[in-house]
Amino acid sequence: MARAPAAGEFELIARFLSRLGAVRHDVLLGVGDDAAVVRPPPGHDLALAHDTLVDGVHFPHGMPAGDVGHRCLAVNLSDLAAMGARPAWGLLSVTLPSGDPDWVERFAEGLDGLAREAGLAVVGGDTTSGPLAVGMSVVGWLPAGLVLRRSGARPGDEVWVSGWPGEAAAGLALIQSGSRAESAPERTVVERFRRPQPRLALGAALLGCATACIDLSDGLLADLGKLCQASGVAAELESRALPMSVALRAVAAGHQAASRWLLAGGDDYELAFTLPAGVDTGTLQAAAGCQIHRIGRITEGVGIWLDGQPADPVSLRGYDHFGGDPGRGA
Amino acid sequence: MARAPAAGEFELIARFLSRLGAVRHDVLLGVGDDAAVVRPPPGHDLALAHDTLVDGVHFPHGMPAGDVGHRCLAVNLSDLAAMGARPAWGLLSVTLPSGDPDWVERFAEGLDGLAREAGLAVVGGDTTSGPLAVGMSVVGWLPAGLVLRRSGARPGDEVWVSGWPGEAAAGLALIQSGSRAESAPERTVVERFRRPQPRLALGAALLGCATACIDLSDGLLADLGKLCQASGVAAELESRALPMSVALRAVAAGHQAASRWLLAGGDDYELAFTLPAGVDTGTLQAAAGCQIHRIGRITEGVGIWLDGQPADPVSLRGYDHFGGDPGRGA
Repeated sequence: MARAPAAGEFELIARFLSRLGAVRHDVLLGVGDDAAVVRPPPGHDLALAHDTLVDGVHFPHGMPAGDVGHRCLAVNLSDLAAMGARPAWGLLSVTLPSGDPDWVERFAEGLDGLAREAGLAVVGGDTTSGPLAVGMSVVGWLPAGLVLRRSGARPGDEVWVSGWPGEAAAGLALIQSGSRAESAPERTVVERFRRPQPRLALGAALLGCATACIDLSDGLLADLGKLCQASGVAAELESRALPMSVALRAVAAGHQAASRWLLAGGDDYELAFTLPAGVDTGTLQAAAGCQIHRIGRITEGVGIWLDGQPADPVSLRGYDHFGGDPGRGA
Repeated sequence: MARAPAAGEFELIARFLSRLGAVRHDVLLGVGDDAAVVRPPPGHDLALAHDTLVDGVHFPHGMPAGDVGHRCLAVNLSDLAAMGARPAWGLLSVTLPSGDPDWVERFAEGLDGLAREAGLAVVGGDTTSGPLAVGMSVVGWLPAGLVLRRSGARPGDEVWVSGWPGEAAAGLALIQSGSRAESAPERTVVERFRRPQPRLALGAALLGCATACIDLSDGLLADLGKLCQASGVAAELESRALPMSVALRAVAAGHQAASRWLLAGGDDYELAFTLPAGVDTGTLQAAAGCQIHRIGRITEGVGIWLDGQPADPVSLRGYDHFGGDPGRGA
């Protein structure tokens, strides 16, 4: 097929993208052959996930390249976190309208920092010419037979969530409004959107302890709804238990706007999970690496209930989007 | 982020794409959670590859959806074949400008047929909104410590190639000329472009026997050149030994055009490989599942030589393209 000839640019890009992430001794053959070769650990299962991010669909057009690189990996690591898996290897796919080396260098830096932190080696992938989109496939390890599913929640379980849901949506709203984010709360929420932190330590701590888990990409109500649907249960939330951060309160025009972001805002990449009675939540909090909050309980029935009323995420922020993947999360 | 609301279409697409490929007992958790979970086999390494295909860059705009589905998997399986790996699991990424269920159904059929044949289960992925592009990450098995690399060719080795290189380029040329491909040779070469057959049986048979291997995506001279560069050797080819098919001869305007396609045409997805002296090539041919041809030998030096003259793929069909991945083949 026809391809744009641009050998020099290509070589430059390949150099930026060929040595990303952690150095791992289980990578027997990295970038540069037809495929990479890795050695899986005995006694483990593997978790596999892929997410593609399209310019203007999954991130705002013009988003800084470093943020795109961070996000490209973060959303995939968040999927591994939600399964309780430990990141190991990744394949990176970059589609670029032109071979802009500056963009690629900053993209690579954003991705590399998070990959090293998470212990993930980028072992291969490809760089193609086309409309801007980036994708990653990631592989993580799970002790054989252990995994966090969406489908294990049971009536009587407690519902928990990590971090401060809604801050990312508030940050995106500020960015889209053209705000310069000068106050501390504004900077906090903008940073939350720009650099989501996958909850890997929490996911690992939940393994063998939580009954179900999901990561929050589409919003607390929407994603908790998927967990409940997969488990065949309902969730009853208490509004006074919802973790509304000081920054979210400060940025929101009022309590109602803050609640809407908290319940229906997307892009947080926090974890929602269910715990059976008797879990030592103090120990869990100590291992989580982030705040965790009890927000309600699982009951028999269908749907999400807030203070006894049905809570409809669509009426709060209307979407069951084509761009995401409610049905095919891996 | 903003996403197009299209719940009904999305559900339809997710249904088409959620049960593709072989049923495998080592898939513990398939499509539908945050990640898939698989159990790797003891005593094996894993080969990982990813290729993305962009509309109008890696396949002609308007290519039938079934052919796009086949190609999307075939190019990735070809990477596994070039390593000698046996296909196991795949993650599929589909980016669509609109939720056209007909297109998706035909795409899924094209991919599913080849996946079942190859024994690969599609265990996850995502579907996103954006300019048409499809990508796959594939995982294959290798007996621990065994792999076909590009870098193992040594002076004295024989150079071999599978199948009939050049037919795919001739087929693409016919398609682009608007030909209706009515003659048998025309149908042969068009089919070769539309439905490339990854040489998985040959790759497996070469494991532990070939010294180096690469798959032909950019053309015989270009890809063999990469193998020689990785191995630090030269290759001497004999033009009378090159496998020029009856169909290629029939379709080409003359011997020179046929030679150009054979040496510099892309998209064949055949394997080029090197064999040390003493390999039982009769047994290899019997296991290969396709014709294999000896075309020359490896010598000390640099580059590819044809009948004693330097053979320059760029002068024959000028590209070291941005759209492919000479440096980052995994």
